[in-house]
Parts: sequence; structure tokens; C-alpha cells
Amino acid sequence: MRQSSLFGRTLREAPADAQTPGHRLMLRAAIARPLASGLYTWLPLGFRVAKKVEQIIREEMDRIGCQEMEMPVLTPAELWKTTGRWEALEPITFRTKDHNGREFMVSYTHEEAVHSHAMSEIQSYKQLPAMVYHFQSKGRDEARPRAGLLRVREFVMKDAYSFDIDHAGLEKSYQAQHGAYARIFERMSLAAVSVESDTGAMGGDTAHEFQVLTDVGEDRIVVCPRCDYRANMEKATRSPEAPISETNVPAPSEISTPSTTSMEALQTSLKVTPDRLLKTLLLRDAAGNVVAVVLPGDRDVNEAKLRKILGTSEVKFAGAADFTAAGAVAGYVGPVGLRARTLVDSSVDARAYIAGANKKDTHLRNVVAGRDFTGERVDAHDVREGDTCPKCKQGALSIKRGVEVGNIFAYGTYYSDKMNATFLAEDGTRKPFVGGSYGIGVGRSVQTIIETHHDDKGIIWPIAVAPYEVHVIALPSNDEAVRTAADALVKDLERAGVEVLYDDRDESAGVKFADSDLIGIPFRATVSKRTLKEDKVELKERSASEAELIPRTTAVERISGAVRRALA
Amino acid sequence: MRQSSLFGRTLREAPADAQTPGHRLMLRAAIARPLASGLYTWLPLGFRVAKKVEQIIREEMDRIGCQEMEMPVLTPAELWKTTGRWEALEPITFRTKDHNGREFMVSYTHEEAVHSHAMSEIQSYKQLPAMVYHFQSKGRDEARPRAGLLRVREFVMKDAYSFDIDHAGLEKSYQAQHGAYARIFERMSLAAVSVESDTGAMGGDTAHEFQVLTDVGEDRIVVCPRCDYRANMEKATRSPEAPISETNVPAPSEISTPSTTSMEALQTSLKVTPDRLLKTLLLRDAAGNVVAVVLPGDRDVNEAKLRKILGTSEVKFAGAADFTAAGAVAGYVGPVGLRARTLVDSSVDARAYIAGANKKDTHLRNVVAGRDFTGERVDAHDVREGDTCPKCKQGALSIKRGVEVGNIFAYGTYYSDKMNATFLAEDGTRKPFVGGSYGIGVGRSVQTIIETHHDDKGIIWPIAVAPYEVHVIALPSNDEAVRTAADALVKDLERAGVEVLYDDRDESAGVKFADSDLIGIPFRATVSKRTLKEDKVELKERSASEAELIPRTTAVERISGAVRRALA
Repeated sequence: MRQSSLFGRTLREAPADAQTPGHRLMLRAAIARPLASGLYTWLPLGFRVAKKVEQIIREEMDRIGCQEMEMPVLTPAELWKTTGRWEALEPITFRTKDHNGREFMVSYTHEEAVHSHAMSEIQSYKQLPAMVYHFQSKGRDEARPRAGLLRVREFVMKDAYSFDIDHAGLEKSYQAQHGAYARIFERMSLAAVSVESDTGAMGGDTAHEFQVLTDVGEDRIVVCPRCDYRANMEKATRSPEAPISETNVPAPSEISTPSTTSMEALQTSLKVTPDRLLKTLLLRDAAGNVVAVVLPGDRDVNEAKLRKILGTSEVKFAGAADFTAAGAVAGYVGPVGLRARTLVDSSVDARAYIAGANKKDTHLRNVVAGRDFTGERVDAHDVREGDTCPKCKQGALSIKRGVEVGNIFAYGTYYSDKMNATFLAEDGTRKPFVGGSYGIGVGRSVQTIIETHHDDKGIIWPIAVAPYEVHVIALPSNDEAVRTAADALVKDLERAGVEVLYDDRDESAGVKFADSDLIGIPFRATVSKRTLKEDKVELKERSASEAELIPRTTAVERISGAVRRALA
Repeated sequence: MRQSSLFGRTLREAPADAQTPGHRLMLRAAIARPLASGLYTWLPLGFRVAKKVEQIIREEMDRIGCQEMEMPVLTPAELWKTTGRWEALEPITFRTKDHNGREFMVSYTHEEAVHSHAMSEIQSYKQLPAMVYHFQSKGRDEARPRAGLLRVREFVMKDAYSFDIDHAGLEKSYQAQHGAYARIFERMSLAAVSVESDTGAMGGDTAHEFQVLTDVGEDRIVVCPRCDYRANMEKATRSPEAPISETNVPAPSEISTPSTTSMEALQTSLKVTPDRLLKTLLLRDAAGNVVAVVLPGDRDVNEAKLRKILGTSEVKFAGAADFTAAGAVAGYVGPVGLRARTLVDSSVDARAYIAGANKKDTHLRNVVAGRDFTGERVDAHDVREGDTCPKCKQGALSIKRGVEVGNIFAYGTYYSDKMNATFLAEDGTRKPFVGGSYGIGVGRSVQTIIETHHDDKGIIWPIAVAPYEVHVIALPSNDEAVRTAADALVKDLERAGVEVLYDDRDESAGVKFADSDLIGIPFRATVSKRTLKEDKVELKERSASEAELIPRTTAVERISGAVRRALA
């Protein structure tokens, strides 16, 4: 490919609002361009990377017997209504209507669609297990698209779906996908770790995310340094510390706390540490009833856990009427005497706490859970740095940032039950499909590769996903001898099966080398007046600091050999 | 691929509403399945065909220097508003809004998007010409999806865009695409002919469609049997016959024609041929003004020509108030004395016609154009069978049905003028890009291949686009010797690079052969107890009537050789 006709120009500077190194480099190197907020176009260079990423995914899906197909972007509302996701996904999806008023979703995923197909294509247990996948554009109405391709409003996802006879079969399919994912990310040089995760909108119980640990990530990942425990903060638990149990605590007594409605204000005015305080949140459950959640002042509430406990898709706070009904006063809510279902977080010990008195300007001292109030015990708190690992019971957990590049869900019969999607079992009865779904975001993977493979000059592509393998540079391109030699080198390399970007532009050495470092093709081969004098070509690896002069006569053999070794 | 685990089952019968042979076979052979009206999923077999079709297109685009990229499905309303197509395309497109009320289109095509990119990526004439393309899903809110993949509401289109310095450059790019299209359709065994066409919603002047002439098509194509003139009916013209000129026609006189408001009724009651009648249509132009169009009774009005003449996106008929204002009476409209702008079709001769008298139950006889009424001359009529070719002036035109599998538009500066999309020209001024766009529908191509390559038993795939090259059939698969031999044949063929579908199902010979004929893979290799007795394999081409027994020892060589020759 001649760079003089390449569609897409490199930028000296990234736009000021580019948020991460990968975002800046992706824009500067003409990998992708926004058409609107969160809507990106792959320029030709980036398109080649995306296709290589897709091909790696395809090969590993095919290897485990997953069959490629393609479902449409637009899917009818009726299908989503069979599982209740038409309403549940409303806040995050794009919808459209045809001119007859029929509604469609710009699909969020394809569980409903693929179950609908499975119902007609799979009649008997003899056709199971079955796994299918496709690469298809998904729509997500993200309120805040962020950091280039890391969080967008439309992206191509590889989504795979497994159908099994029973949970043992699902476990096998799930493990096959888990193994494929490990190979996929390794092949694209992403150090992704598998992390326990919340199932969220997908339903079911077991789920893993593949997270690349990097500071640009927006997910918080809890990691044990002593064992292999890794979990998304949304799902992470901890091994409880030895409970603090105080005895002979006096009965609760009121303290006057005028205008002291926040935890921080309370700590300051009473001069206590936050672990001595209780905070009580008033929320509404799925049915609209008021629910109180009680935690120590030093623990943050975990929204994902709360959503699951409350059975809601978002955490809703109680309103003024709810406060009145529960006998609570805003800013002074406490569990004692509260008229509401009460959930007590597992981190609340049997000790004396200071809590709201449900009375203006007043708190209670010496409040003890189990004595002064009761409630269902739940785990609704965030793990924090230094908590004890729930698996090995020894490691002190640490919290990292991660980018989720893939996720897998074992949802079992979550969809087939709702959709009555069944097959004829060996015993003659009809049984629901037992399924899982398995996603990888192509664009997010590409940018995460950049986030983790660059230096201050530009991208350093792993060769398996590089837009081209060799960048040939002619210096200057208007020198006939140089041009003839460079043309010949390009032709011979291409004939040897090497992918070449050829900088034949009428630009200075400075511009050409800067662009070459920015675009980050693994090998650079420079043909210049100087190298020609010695009948040589200058070869430099993008990741190396030193270049090397190699004889022109063996240059094709040397370079194509180096490419082959790097690809192996 | 083992057929026992193939996702997608063949059907004995097509659904009753399947409209064409290709539609029926596509469904029966598990090529694609509808998820809703006009929304289709490629099942694994069909997906392979679609990908081969895409790859052929890709290779021919790459060959002419067209660069692959990928623009998003959702594109912002603001972009479409710059060219007025947000409104113009409303009736045929799907729109969506984000939760902030910002509007997007499920893109109809990508002219606006690609021009927006060209404005930022192409700065100077040195970067021109440039051609880019992508394969992307398009949305079309078709009121009447039809005949399977022939007319759908979402489909993948290859759309390419060229950018040139001037019209001479555009002409070259257009010819390069025209040539690529010819090769593409030839490689996929589609006998597509290039046909002059109307530019419709795409703007510009020059356009061609690639039409496959088949009775299942919904387009009408005018073809000259003597020369290479081919045009879509929407655009077709004819060489005028020697005009009939009658002299000494008496002045118009009234005839009483009670309740005779149709051309047919008039012919019957007056016993005249339709060429002696004039019909006058009252329409509204883009500005809402009334316009009369006058044609002979034996000529049909051509809506596409009318739209162009009136500058509207759809032909709108005049209402009651318009009739009153124009002094016309419904059913008795005529050009004499009409108070409206009058367009006279070129097929109206200088002879005596019978026309409406603009008076209830009354017509006029001896109405002569130019004498009794005047108007602008336009070509607003359909060509009909037997008209004279406008190109060679000799051939008698015939009218065929066609499926449009591709189209190319040379729109020039239609978009760049509206979007102010310019580049720095060699003379230092800024000039608008001169462009064209070039589309091919993948799904429609696939089904058109089926429409033109089948017999009463099933599909007969051209090998270049066949889902697999060889169908190996084990009979019966539960016989160990048969199974072992068939397994080995499949393995050896695959090792030789041949794509094999392996019918390892526990089904009868009848079912397996019927499915094999239905799916239509080019070569069938049967391993049965009978063939094993002679140490042979039965080889049959799908398109041949006779099978042949070949020695097992050389079977792989024979079959892979036959595949290679067929592919060459």
C-alpha cells in the first residue's frame, strides 16, 4: 500500500479532549475517527487491525466447534418482550419504529434472537450441544461515551451462544469458551485476566469478565496477590474479619446533633472514626416498597449487589412520602424504630454504633444490631484495599483498574424458560435449552492493545494484529535511484507474502520517521541515498532502539524471515 | 463440517408465502431465516456463501485500488440535514433518538458520512483520486418486504465512494468500478447486464444498474435486441416514430359521455382505439402548484420521469380544491381551457384526439395539440414493447424483468457542493470533490444466484460461492466400515484444502440424497457398503445426471483435482 494514497492522515497533536494514551494515539495514527460522539469509523489502517483481531477470534471460535452465522442489527420488540428485556434495557438502548408503528431495537445483544432460531433449528437432543457466533454491530445508548473506542455507542461484538442439554453440558461449553478466550487474548498480546463478575442484565449466576489491568480502565478489579482470586468490584467479596463484639453496652441515648446530616460532619463534630457510625439508606425495591439498608460508616455500598438484592435494574432512592411512612427524617435516618423492611450489611458488628434517631437534629449513641434493631443480613458493601481474600483467606486484597475486553455468562435456562425454548429430550419429554453467551468487543480490544503497547513516540503493534508488517521508507522518494530500489524492495517483499506499507510521499525524513513511529508497524526498512551507497537497507524494529544495515541482496530474505519468526 | 451438528435444518416444504423459486430454496436449504418480516439471519451454510460473495467483491475492489474501511450503522441527523436527505429519505428509513433527544438514522447509505471523512482526511489534490469502500448493514423501511432476500429491511451492502479532482477523474473512477462490477458478477456466475438508470435519491446525472434478467425481478428493463441499449424502464427512452400529422381537423365539438370517466369506458362506448384518446393527469409540483400532464390514451405515465420533471420525491395527485381552481371536473379533465401549467408528453401527435371537456358527462372530439391547447413538451411516458431503440434507431425494444444486484452513480459535486466539502487544488483554490458511489447488495446477490442456478430438486451452487465444495455422504453412517472410510475421506480431502460438508447423520439414503440435492454443493462423494465392496467412492456433480465410481485409492486426488479445475 502506497502511503501517498492512504485514506487517513496522521495528526501531529491529538484533540484536546482525548482522554487516554490509547485514545490519543488511535486518533493521531489514523486508526479510527469519530463521526459523532461515541460513533466511530475504522479508517483503512485501523480496519486492517480490526480484521486481524476478528480473524484471531474467528479461528479460536471455529477451533472449539462454534459455527459462524449472522443475525440482524434490528430485532423486533416482541422478541425482547418475551423476556422482559424490552423494558429493562430501555435506558441503555436505541429503539426505532417502522412507518406502521412496529418497534425494533438496535440490538443490545442477541440472546432472544438466537433462542428464537434455536427453537426452529434444533428439534432434538441429538443436535446438541450447539454453539454459534457472529460479529455484529451493537447499539448502546451510553450517556457518556468515553476514551475513544473504550466506551462507545455502536461497536462490533463477537457474541457466541451455547445450547446444551443440561448444566453439565453448559459447564463444558463454558470451559471451552473460557479456554478459547485465554488463547484469543494471548494471540492479540492482551494480558487479560479472568475475573468473577456480576451477571447484570444478562441473567443467570456464573459470569466471568476478561479484564486487562491498566490505569485507563473504568472497572475496579479486586485481586489477591497470594492466590488466583480475581473479581469485579461489583461481585467481589472478602473473608470476614474476626467480629467485634462488645458486651454490656448501655441502652441507646440521644445526642443533640443540630444540622449534622452527613457522615463527615458527624465524624468531625463527635470526633469519632467512621467505623463507629451507622449509615442507613432508604431505597425502593422492585415492587416500590421502602427498604432500609444499614452499613457501618466506613463501608461503601455496592450498587450491583444492592440491585441484585432488591431485584431492580437500578437503585432507586426513597422519596419524601416514603420517609414519612417509615417514620424517618432525612439526614437523621437510623434503624431503631424504623417502619420498613431492614437489610443489615454483613459488615455491621455486634458493637455500639452511633446512628440517626429518626428525629430532627438528633442521633442515638450505643445502638447495637440484634438488640436495638433487627433485619435480614445481606452482603451489600464494597470490598476495600487490604480486605482479606475470600478464597485463600490470607492475601490482602488490592484493587486495580481494568478494561473489560470480553465476558462470558452461564445463564442456564434464564432465557429458555421465559421463551419456552425447548428441545425433545432423550426421555421423550421437552426440556429447556441450557445456555451461555460469550462476548468480545472488537474495537475495545484494539484500543486496549494500544493502551498497553506504546511509547511516547507512538503505537508499538504486536505483529499478529499490526496493520502492516513492514514499513518501507524511501528517502527521498523523488530521487530516482532511491525510488527504484524502494519500489523493487516493496514488490519483492509483497511477492514473499509480507504486508507492506510504503512511504512514497514527498516528505522529509523527520516527518516520515515520526509517522512511522506513530503508526507503529513492527519493522521499518529504510532505503536512502546513504544506504544505497553501501548497497544496503536500514532495518529497525519498532520496539528496538538500534537500527541495523543489511545488504540489499539478502534484504527480502532477512526481512521476511524476521516477520515469519515474529509471527510464529 | 459434520452435518449432524450443523446449526440449521433443511425443510421438506417451503412456507406457503415464499414467493419465488430462490426464496423457497433459500429457506428450504437453511441458507437464511427470517427473524421478522424483512429481517433475515444468515444460518451457517448461507453465511459461508455470503462471505464468499463478499470476498469476491473485496478482491475486485482492492484490485482497482479501493481501500476498505468501516463506517457506523448509526449516523447523526445533522449530517443528513446538510444535504436535505434527512427529510427526503424519511419515508424509507429507520430513525432513532438517544435519551438526550439527539436523532440518528439507521444509515440508508453513507455519502454524507464519507464526505465528512474526506473533508478531514484529504487536504490536497495530491491525495486524489481516492476510493474507499465498506461492507455495512443498511436499514430500509420497506413497506412491502418481498421474496426473501430480494427486498428486505436490513441488508449488508458493499458501498464504495470515489473522490476526484474533476469530472474527467470521476469518469475514470466510474469506469474502473464499472469494470470491477462486470468481473464481480461474472465471478459469482451472475449474468448481470449494465443498464442506464435513474439517479433517484442519490442525486447526479449518470447512473447504471447491474440487472440480472429473470422473471422474478421487480424492475422492468428495456432491452434492444440489435444493439447494446439497455435501460431501466424508469429511464428508458425510444426513438420517436414518424409523427402523425392530421390537417384540416374540424374545430373541437362536444360529445355527451354520461358516466364515462375511465379510458376503458370511453373506448367501449365510443368504439375507438386508445391512441385516439388523450388523458390528462392533474398533479402537484414540489411547490404545491397544480400541473397538468397530457398523454395519449395508449401510453402509460412514467412516475420516475414525472418525479424528475416535477422535482418531487413522490408523485402527488391534485385534490378537489385544485380541480376547482383549474376549472376541471374529475373524470372529464382535458387540456382545452384548463387553468394550470400544462406539460404535453412527447408522444402526443398533431392529430385529432378525444379529450375531457372539463364539464360533467362531456368530452371533446377533434382536440389538436398546439391548436386547441399548448404546453411544455416533456418525455413522461413509459417505453413499451416494440418501440424503436433510441440508440441504433432500428431494434424493436423488448421489456424484461430484472433483479438489480448493483448500482453505480456518478453524482459529481451533488454532495460536496451542499456540504462544502473541498480540497486544496493545484492552483491554490479550494474545489469541491467530484464523486461517485457504487453499491452491491450481498444478500440479494446470493438469492439471485439461487434464482438462476437451481433445478426442481434444489440449488446448484457455482463452486466459487458454494457453501462447501464437496458433500461427503456416508451410507449408512452407523456401519463401522463405512464410517471409518468416510471419516478418512473427509480428513484427507480437508487436508488437501477442500471444503467438505460431511453427512454423518443417522438418516436414510433417500433423506441424505434429497438434502444433498437441495443444498446443492457442487460435488457429492458417497461412501456406502456397496461402493466399499468394490473399494470405490461414488462421485457425482450436482449439475450432472450421472454418477461415476472412482477407486478409493485415488479418490482424494481425483476429487480435489476436479474441485481445483472447477474453481479455476
